[in-house]
Amino acid sequence: MEKISVPLGQRSYEIRIEAGSLGRVGSAVEGLRFGRRGIIISDPQVKRLYGAAVSKSLRDSGFTIETLTIPAGEENKTLETVARLYHEMLSSGLDRKSFVVALGGGLVGDVAGFAAATYMRGIPFVQVPTTLLAQVDASVGGKVGVNLPEGKNLVGAFHQPSLVFIDPDVLKTLPAREQRSGFAEVVKYGVIRDADFFSYLEEHYEDVLLLKPSAIEKAIATCCRIKAEVVAADEREESGLRATLNFGHTIAHSLEALSAYETYLHGEAVSIGMDCAAEISSRLGLLSRSDADRVVSLLKNSGLPVAFSGLDVEQLLARTRFDKKVLGDKIRFVLAKKIGEVFLSDTVPLDLVRDVLQERCEAE
Amino acid sequence: MEKISVPLGQRSYEIRIEAGSLGRVGSAVEGLRFGRRGIIISDPQVKRLYGAAVSKSLRDSGFTIETLTIPAGEENKTLETVARLYHEMLSSGLDRKSFVVALGGGLVGDVAGFAAATYMRGIPFVQVPTTLLAQVDASVGGKVGVNLPEGKNLVGAFHQPSLVFIDPDVLKTLPAREQRSGFAEVVKYGVIRDADFFSYLEEHYEDVLLLKPSAIEKAIATCCRIKAEVVAADEREESGLRATLNFGHTIAHSLEALSAYETYLHGEAVSIGMDCAAEISSRLGLLSRSDADRVVSLLKNSGLPVAFSGLDVEQLLARTRFDKKVLGDKIRFVLAKKIGEVFLSDTVPLDLVRDVLQERCEAE
Repeated sequence: MEKISVPLGQRSYEIRIEAGSLGRVGSAVEGLRFGRRGIIISDPQVKRLYGAAVSKSLRDSGFTIETLTIPAGEENKTLETVARLYHEMLSSGLDRKSFVVALGGGLVGDVAGFAAATYMRGIPFVQVPTTLLAQVDASVGGKVGVNLPEGKNLVGAFHQPSLVFIDPDVLKTLPAREQRSGFAEVVKYGVIRDADFFSYLEEHYEDVLLLKPSAIEKAIATCCRIKAEVVAADEREESGLRATLNFGHTIAHSLEALSAYETYLHGEAVSIGMDCAAEISSRLGLLSRSDADRVVSLLKNSGLPVAFSGLDVEQLLARTRFDKKVLGDKIRFVLAKKIGEVFLSDTVPLDLVRDVLQERCEAE
Repeated sequence: MEKISVPLGQRSYEIRIEAGSLGRVGSAVEGLRFGRRGIIISDPQVKRLYGAAVSKSLRDSGFTIETLTIPAGEENKTLETVARLYHEMLSSGLDRKSFVVALGGGLVGDVAGFAAATYMRGIPFVQVPTTLLAQVDASVGGKVGVNLPEGKNLVGAFHQPSLVFIDPDVLKTLPAREQRSGFAEVVKYGVIRDADFFSYLEEHYEDVLLLKPSAIEKAIATCCRIKAEVVAADEREESGLRATLNFGHTIAHSLEALSAYETYLHGEAVSIGMDCAAEISSRLGLLSRSDADRVVSLLKNSGLPVAFSGLDVEQLLARTRFDKKVLGDKIRFVLAKKIGEVFLSDTVPLDLVRDVLQERCEAE
């Protein structure tokens, strides 16, 4: 088993990664000094696949457990969904010492985590992520929240989990497209902070995508270790370090928003965004051409998109400027100096972004 | 000016108390490293009285300020009110560096504080309390939140303000009944932690109620100092210390709930509850008869109620047991050993509580 600690003083916690461990989540939770009563929050599909195993394990450890579900789909990541959870949590008799287990992908973790953050002024929660994206990224770091009609994640909290419990075996039921989408975030960690890991991925990306045990465990553990380091150093995204986790995300958010979150999975949008960010870094003379090529090659080889269609470049630009509240002709971007090193820049010329987007916009 | 610090590490802040200081709130906020944009959240009446002075002061200090209002009344302390605030905060252009000023009583502070705690994962806020209750109690300590149909304050957060700015002069427009209600919490601080202060109140309660400058300032400062000590030692109500602030509140919450928050102001219910708690403490042989008498005398002399009517004692008991999730025949209470010293007991016999309530239940 891999154990990675996220050192945050009183809010410190462990990430545990072990294939086939799902049925042992109960004994891991036993060590956490929670009350006896807990609730699993999941979505209908994940509940069907893994709900029984997780709730049996918790019951075997002496906990009183019920399972609630929230509907899948970004359109349900709302205050209304959280309000419904509050009522159900009260009906289940959850008190201040009770706990929440978020069993699912990033959406479940964000919504369940926000419910936990605000129910009776905050109760503890455990992340049991079931998608690659959630295992390597969303489940670590305590960002929880919901969307408003005006935009994504506009309401939320920093509420660190008490444990992140990862069983890579659950990825076996994940559709290949979701798997690849999560892999985009895996590539991101290599680019932003670990050149050796990036080289490893160039050689072993197929093993990771095929869930070969040693490869997928190494990939998840490396990503979690990097995320833990970054979060420990800049928990509330104040110093700029945590913001570097957004490499590729400036364009990604605009692509997702303009396509109403229907065309691209998050990781697919991030893949297109990372290619753009690498290209922009290269044209600004910051990143070598060969490093930029390595980024795009790895993304392409693993089946991720590096171009888009059906969207207007000017609208994308306008959305990006709106998101970043930019008034002038410069924009904020995470740029790469080399593979393994990125930084936050406020001075990327809008015209350059336009050029790079135009080249990646394919006729339908 | 009195300055009291609330030492909470990175979340430390100051309470400033000075008569006539309202128009200087802008320069106090200047020292806090917020962004330029802020929003005042108030209720219509407080806005009419003090909104212009506070917003002028902030504008004079260079901030861009708008004022939002939420309707007065406990029935508006809801998630729906907070959702409306989110939309208005977005329309006003508030970003992660912006700040909220809660200008009003406890309800405004709780709702505005919760909006600040969750908007874009948390932005800073300043408390400018305008009732005695809020000045001595609710504005310090970071408890923010809203009610659910099932009960009070079931959703919320611990979100410490960045500053508590108190001008006792604003109490001049407070109705006498509200003033007395706040005074019940003032008495509470004497009972739970400061015998000298209790003696001072016995001698000077009229001066405090009449807002004589030295008396009201001393009262507010003493209460805030005690609250700051308690919060610093037990921020998240874990050790039991912060729970002692609930002296008188076990019965008070039940009285308020059963009368649908219409018959009693919070402090009035707390007054009845404190008399009950003192009497229970005395009958259990913990508190001397003379100390119990001093408590009830001070409450009566200051015009606060120590009896109730129109409510069924068995219903009150049932509600109290429900609130505390008690199954047996013992109940949790904050009890007094002497004036200035209280403790949390889990073993108060329900029959004793019944007797004491019955004696205080008057025929209509």
